[in-house]
Amino acid sequence: MGRFELQMTADAVNALMLRAFPDAHADAMAKVVDLAPGRATLVRRYGEGMLRPGGLISGPNLMGLADTGAYALILAHVGEQLMAVTSQLTMNFLRGAKPGDLHAEAELLHLGRRSAVCDVRIWTESPDRLAAQANVTYALPLPKGAS
Amino acid sequence: MGRFELQMTADAVNALMLRAFPDAHADAMAKVVDLAPGRATLVRRYGEGMLRPGGLISGPNLMGLADTGAYALILAHVGEQLMAVTSQLTMNFLRGAKPGDLHAEAELLHLGRRSAVCDVRIWTESPDRLAAQANVTYALPLPKGAS
Amino acid sequence: MGRFELQMTADAVNALMLRAFPDAHADAMAKVVDLAPGRATLVRRYGEGMLRPGGLISGPNLMGLADTGAYALILAHVGEQLMAVTSQLTMNFLRGAKPGDLHAEAELLHLGRRSAVCDVRIWTESPDRLAAQANVTYALPLPKGAS
Amino acid sequence: MGRFELQMTADAVNALMLRAFPDAHADAMAKVVDLAPGRATLVRRYGEGMLRPGGLISGPNLMGLADTGAYALILAHVGEQLMAVTSQLTMNFLRGAKPGDLHAEAELLHLGRRSAVCDVRIWTESPDRLAAQANVTYALPLPKGAS
Repeated sequence: MGRFELQMTADAVNALMLRAFPDAHADAMAKVVDLAPGRATLVRRYGEGMLRPGGLISGPNLMGLADTGAYALILAHVGEQLMAVTSQLTMNFLRGAKPGDLHAEAELLHLGRRSAVCDVRIWTESPDRLAAQANVTYALPLPKGAS
Repeated sequence: MGRFELQMTADAVNALMLRAFPDAHADAMAKVVDLAPGRATLVRRYGEGMLRPGGLISGPNLMGLADTGAYALILAHVGEQLMAVTSQLTMNFLRGAKPGDLHAEAELLHLGRRSAVCDVRIWTESPDRLAAQANVTYALPLPKGAS
Repeated sequence: MGRFELQMTADAVNALMLRAFPDAHADAMAKVVDLAPGRATLVRRYGEGMLRPGGLISGPNLMGLADTGAYALILAHVGEQLMAVTSQLTMNFLRGAKPGDLHAEAELLHLGRRSAVCDVRIWTESPDRLAAQANVTYALPLPKGAS
Repeated sequence: MGRFELQMTADAVNALMLRAFPDAHADAMAKVVDLAPGRATLVRRYGEGMLRPGGLISGPNLMGLADTGAYALILAHVGEQLMAVTSQLTMNFLRGAKPGDLHAEAELLHLGRRSAVCDVRIWTESPDRLAAQANVTYALPLPKGAS
């Protein structure tokens, strides 16, 4: 739609996130697998530690992925700006997330000077069977010298 | 995507909403102008009473439209079931809504037995310049015979 | 608790809001009836136009009051700064709001340089029977010359 | 205020949660340290794995505690009913959470037949310096015999 412009490639975003979280196992990090203006798709590989009693993927894993997905998408549009911080995350849990690789589709709803808002949808089985939907707001640092 | 099935036409939903809100002026009601499985587009005609100081459309008007849009979309999928009630509404105000007809695009994220969750996007200028985005959850009445 | 400091009295906040919304009938405006550091109580007098079908107070009236309550409380702490704008409002509808004067108790959760977050609880019958609870985030204008 | 009634003691809730999460280290579980009708206080002991880059406690740890705090509080009021599931969680990140034991104060806003809504406030330094505030909604299982 022409309203958003990418500043980084998917590879550059993935490399930046690995540098930002040096203690994380590369396997345990969500990875951007597709990137377009205003949209990113991420995959986080399934691991057994992700389950909660009942055999479904736990809420904190889903919330962490929503947050990471929004962060990656915003980085891709603002460039190497690691200081963005989450100010709000609203998560709707829609159905139990069956074990499997987690997919997240993140969409930029608004990118302002001071904040960015994303919509993130998460599933394991199929995008027609969403496990969760989130809205995530990041506060952006003011550019140096800005008023 | 085949996962949602319409139970009513746009005309039938509009007629139902007018009966449900007999005191509302037909002009002041949002109207479904497009309807497909899982999605509805509504328009609410601009009126001067909708402005707040500063010359932008007021928050309650935007929130009311988000709520109505979700309600119309849910009705279209569950049939003549007026008893659905809003249990939660989260609204992100993305930019000032300039005076003009209000457009809402509502999408069904989940339709369960007990609740339904919608995403609603609202604009006056253009869908590329969203004024607001909302998530709306409705509680659905239990079928007869359930306690 | 000493962490918030009032900049205005309840009377001054009420007068400021009447000036800010010159077209509103004074009767229809919520009014601050109690104010302390970090907390404000507002009352909005009942009027018949506030009902929705079913004889309960409508959602937009409750959402409008949550927004106004947060705005009044923030003004009281930042002074005559009319430019604060709502960036997010999350409303939980807890039970039907029976006809009657609307009461709102607003609490400041955080007041930063760039934003303020409030919790607002709304009832008509009794504070033990909440009709709704909201979280409201306002974006604050940057002071002149701030970086 | 007399509107909520406890069904379990803090010790019973803690024991129930340890049985529900058998793989969790007892140390890593949040523990109810104070319980009253409508309110619970929990503490989760600090551990190094809880930090994110920058030396603050990570978002998923805060969100997990908000969820656990709401769950414990609801259990205490509905009895040994493990099947409650989170349907919605909204988290406001108010300031960076400095390393230290995490404290959560959970308050029941509404306990209905079908759902329960809690407010949860989280801090490490002091309750006057909240790190985060959450609203958490749980769906409650229908009583036996309901369809």
